[in-house]
Amino acid sequence: MASPLNPPRRILLGPGPSNPHPRVLEALSAPVVGHLDPEFFKVMEESKAMLRWLFHTDNELTFPVSGTGSAGMETCLVNLIEEGDTVLVCVNGVFGTRMADIVERLGGNLVKVEAPWGEIIRPEQVEQALKDHKVDIVTLVHAETSTGVLQPVEEISRLTHDAGALLVLDTVTSLGGCPVTIDAWNVDATYSGTQKCLSCPPGLSPVSFNQAARDKLGRRKGKVKSWYLDLTMIERYWGEDRAYHHTAPISMNYGLHAALSEVENEGLEARFARHELNHRALVAGLEVLGIPLASQEGHRLWMLNSVKIPEGVNDAALRKRLLLDFNIEIGGGLGALAGKTWRIGLMGESSRRDNVVALVQALGQILKEEGADVPVTDALGAIEGVYTRG
Amino acid sequence: MASPLNPPRRILLGPGPSNPHPRVLEALSAPVVGHLDPEFFKVMEESKAMLRWLFHTDNELTFPVSGTGSAGMETCLVNLIEEGDTVLVCVNGVFGTRMADIVERLGGNLVKVEAPWGEIIRPEQVEQALKDHKVDIVTLVHAETSTGVLQPVEEISRLTHDAGALLVLDTVTSLGGCPVTIDAWNVDATYSGTQKCLSCPPGLSPVSFNQAARDKLGRRKGKVKSWYLDLTMIERYWGEDRAYHHTAPISMNYGLHAALSEVENEGLEARFARHELNHRALVAGLEVLGIPLASQEGHRLWMLNSVKIPEGVNDAALRKRLLLDFNIEIGGGLGALAGKTWRIGLMGESSRRDNVVALVQALGQILKEEGADVPVTDALGAIEGVYTRG
Repeated sequence: MASPLNPPRRILLGPGPSNPHPRVLEALSAPVVGHLDPEFFKVMEESKAMLRWLFHTDNELTFPVSGTGSAGMETCLVNLIEEGDTVLVCVNGVFGTRMADIVERLGGNLVKVEAPWGEIIRPEQVEQALKDHKVDIVTLVHAETSTGVLQPVEEISRLTHDAGALLVLDTVTSLGGCPVTIDAWNVDATYSGTQKCLSCPPGLSPVSFNQAARDKLGRRKGKVKSWYLDLTMIERYWGEDRAYHHTAPISMNYGLHAALSEVENEGLEARFARHELNHRALVAGLEVLGIPLASQEGHRLWMLNSVKIPEGVNDAALRKRLLLDFNIEIGGGLGALAGKTWRIGLMGESSRRDNVVALVQALGQILKEEGADVPVTDALGAIEGVYTRG
Repeated sequence: MASPLNPPRRILLGPGPSNPHPRVLEALSAPVVGHLDPEFFKVMEESKAMLRWLFHTDNELTFPVSGTGSAGMETCLVNLIEEGDTVLVCVNGVFGTRMADIVERLGGNLVKVEAPWGEIIRPEQVEQALKDHKVDIVTLVHAETSTGVLQPVEEISRLTHDAGALLVLDTVTSLGGCPVTIDAWNVDATYSGTQKCLSCPPGLSPVSFNQAARDKLGRRKGKVKSWYLDLTMIERYWGEDRAYHHTAPISMNYGLHAALSEVENEGLEARFARHELNHRALVAGLEVLGIPLASQEGHRLWMLNSVKIPEGVNDAALRKRLLLDFNIEIGGGLGALAGKTWRIGLMGESSRRDNVVALVQALGQILKEEGADVPVTDALGAIEGVYTRG
């Protein structure tokens, strides 16, 4: 009935998944042991330590939840929110919108602070909302994958805590690609994903809760509304008790362990510099092709470039050609930005000089064939210039 | 900080994970494509078709949820239960207990029908409870992994539907190891797992909803209480819309596709016969060693053998020796059965003649060294006898 599995080798420059590191793929096929095997406990402990290092946190409760990034989002919210809590959700893209949806499902009182998609949330907005409402929790997206915007955290964190609230931060796309300093920013709960700058396939979501978040969890009047994501039980498996909760996804955890080891091998400073440099090279090349960035200047992500689709170009047809003729995946716009933007990821292993060149070359060729007068050679020259200057 | 990943090769004879098929491990390390790549859609469609074939169902809504078996359990319950629904949960082990817990978290009116752990739920019990209460949903565990009991489904399904209720069936441990006929049994919603008789690592949970279950979902007054597990959205990604919900776990889905292909290659009849034969051989060997089954006669699982720990044997110490000296994992008892039973899995690829022999030999050797007068040679002879007679 089924054909043999033989997926093509794509260059993954969409909003995730990124290309996994070869050693991560190797780890996925390592012999499976049981979820209560001491050899697996070793993997768990090492991954926890590496995640703390990567998040810049001492939080004891730091481990991967057994689902994708959205499961991590739900984990943070379902554990922290009790019916009647007032939750201020900062919305400037798809992922803020998703958090607002979850807050309502959980019976929270939703207060929204909104900014146009492609712009940051300004601290003054949060300050005003915190004056207007008695807020229990503030949620913020560090790297909005739908718009390519990097959100400053520190000022909003200060305001949040001055108002006696907790801060939940989405670090799905930022972790491993730019600095994420959970303790220094005083973030109370955060969740990330494996398939972005960690270059591990999708399937796990690293989360971290500080003591204030755990205290709120401990003060709950009723049980957490989700059994699968209930951290009061899961932490007993990831902690010293090793109490069985659900069967951990062994192979995915091998993959995450390998991915974190590769981040360690490269070093954070080098890794961030690489993401920043390839971003600048891509932007230089695209600008010459007449494809400008769509996100707010001064707040642009290195790992996810939201760009304006040139006028007259058929979005879907071009992305299909890129995929099928050049084996390159880029992402379309989401929600309000569908048909208006492309999202070009340079995440983890996908953030490479040859990928930048291949994409600009391919885009240039397709646009030319469709009759546009685009200076491909100049664009490649601009890219080279960035790498030469460094 | 971390050591290189180098997990040992264990013989996995616990309650799951089982040993993955080599081609499944290979599939896990195949090149990753995007979750909106047409090549991935092909994998999705083929997996859906194979799952329908394996579940014996025509249900359109049949696909793997992005979490382990417990996520599948929560998916069925969170989608079907609205606050105030009366849910009759059949409890004769850990997994019925878990469903009862979830029902309460979701604000359902919980009615429990209980049987001693190790015995089946009798239809008369369900019949009486359905007379005493106006029930919306009945839940049942087909193969109780905590006790080794195979639950007959047909009579309870008839009673459930006569009372106008829906039936949710846990097929985590049964699927791929013994007949599971969702449509013939008139099961309205079911969930399974990958790490048992499918011999794929843990991480996904195949679910299937029939039209009656989808109708109940469609009649909900409010949104599903979980965003991550909301089937009204997920089915739009697994259906023709391909609407983005969350980033699907690509590599795990490759693994499931390969695992289902292997089930197809073997054929269901041959696969079930293999599970049954190895079960009988194991039981014959263990009985000679003085290790009897703990589950109700006539209702014993082929894939999970719950046995009584011989008197005077240190449970934890013996299992540790089995693991570290013989590389064989078996499971301890759960809940009320902790310290009283072992759970020996012969699931999927782990259900092999050489594994049966290796375990009985190892158990015999350890018991002998601890001073017990166990007839190991006779036990091995009993095993051979079963294979000779067939």
